[in-house]
Amino acid sequence: MKHMRICFVGDSFVNGTGDPTALGWAGRLCVAAQRQGHEITYYNLGIRGQTSRQIAQRWQAEVVARLPKDSDGRIVFSFGANDIILEEGEVRVPFAESLQNTRHILTTAQQLFPTIMVGPPPLLEDDLNQRLATLSQQFGAVCEAVEVPYLEVFPSLQHSQTWKEEVAANDGAHPRTAGYDLLARLVQEWSAWQSWLV
Amino acid sequence: MKHMRICFVGDSFVNGTGDPTALGWAGRLCVAAQRQGHEITYYNLGIRGQTSRQIAQRWQAEVVARLPKDSDGRIVFSFGANDIILEEGEVRVPFAESLQNTRHILTTAQQLFPTIMVGPPPLLEDDLNQRLATLSQQFGAVCEAVEVPYLEVFPSLQHSQTWKEEVAANDGAHPRTAGYDLLARLVQEWSAWQSWLV
Repeated sequence: MKHMRICFVGDSFVNGTGDPTALGWAGRLCVAAQRQGHEITYYNLGIRGQTSRQIAQRWQAEVVARLPKDSDGRIVFSFGANDIILEEGEVRVPFAESLQNTRHILTTAQQLFPTIMVGPPPLLEDDLNQRLATLSQQFGAVCEAVEVPYLEVFPSLQHSQTWKEEVAANDGAHPRTAGYDLLARLVQEWSAWQSWLV
Repeated sequence: MKHMRICFVGDSFVNGTGDPTALGWAGRLCVAAQRQGHEITYYNLGIRGQTSRQIAQRWQAEVVARLPKDSDGRIVFSFGANDIILEEGEVRVPFAESLQNTRHILTTAQQLFPTIMVGPPPLLEDDLNQRLATLSQQFGAVCEAVEVPYLEVFPSLQHSQTWKEEVAANDGAHPRTAGYDLLARLVQEWSAWQSWLV
């Protein structure tokens, strides 16, 4: 069995904000993998409110401090929702820049360690979700171009009553236990994640 | 109820290395606090192998990125074991420097947010533990001088069969579930931690 060190880098959904179990989807993945007999060092680098611009600025220093060059390091990115939020009438990060940031992050990361990306989950408001759905799709195109495996979770979570109800009953953005269970299961069933656990 | 954002900064014990539940003592504290009705954003900034010198270099950038100035931010430090490990016949960080690093970290941190410190847990080898016991005590003196609450956990864990047996059966440094339970309970019963949950 390998001993992997995995950095999960992103926003509040990566952090697991709102989850009473303090695991989020990233922690759930590591618990499940350890149950299968893998030893995993789990580094959660999700920060609430961060856009792709902010993540681009800090991810590398944080990852390099955690993954020694000779270690079996892995990187999982997930962000996007904060980019499309409005601030004083404008999106926090323009569409083209979001894609540029993502391309730059991924091409740098994949030179260091195996890298995969999980798309942003949906929010509650329809007009936000329209922009976010497009961004989520476009992330897929960026990932394909740079050959980083990408998992889109937006469509299936948008159709989930569990997700919607938990988010609505909480803070309008983050789910609780059942929502993070659901998101974790989507990633767990993904071939790119599974290929790390062979 | 407050909504606190807590950064736990330190080494592999803070990270929870070896814990199959992926929580470590820091995650356990946050789960317990949330069960009491507190909303907590949990940031785990423990990095395997790091000495006080390495933590001094990176903690501030990482904490500032996670705790907005106007948030109810808190900082918990815990480190020490890696300082006293030998590398090519010398300790990785000389005793006087460990204390200096700690003083500098704490005086800077307490100007930003309420700050507390948990001492290092014991290792397995007696000669390492002799140095570590002294360092743990001296950390207490530094904390007293700068008025940062300090919890020494070394003596009670050194007398715990549970801790020793789990560490010995694992990798010689880190416990599993029962050891992290034990360490979490020590911190949970500590007045300085409890005062944050009023």
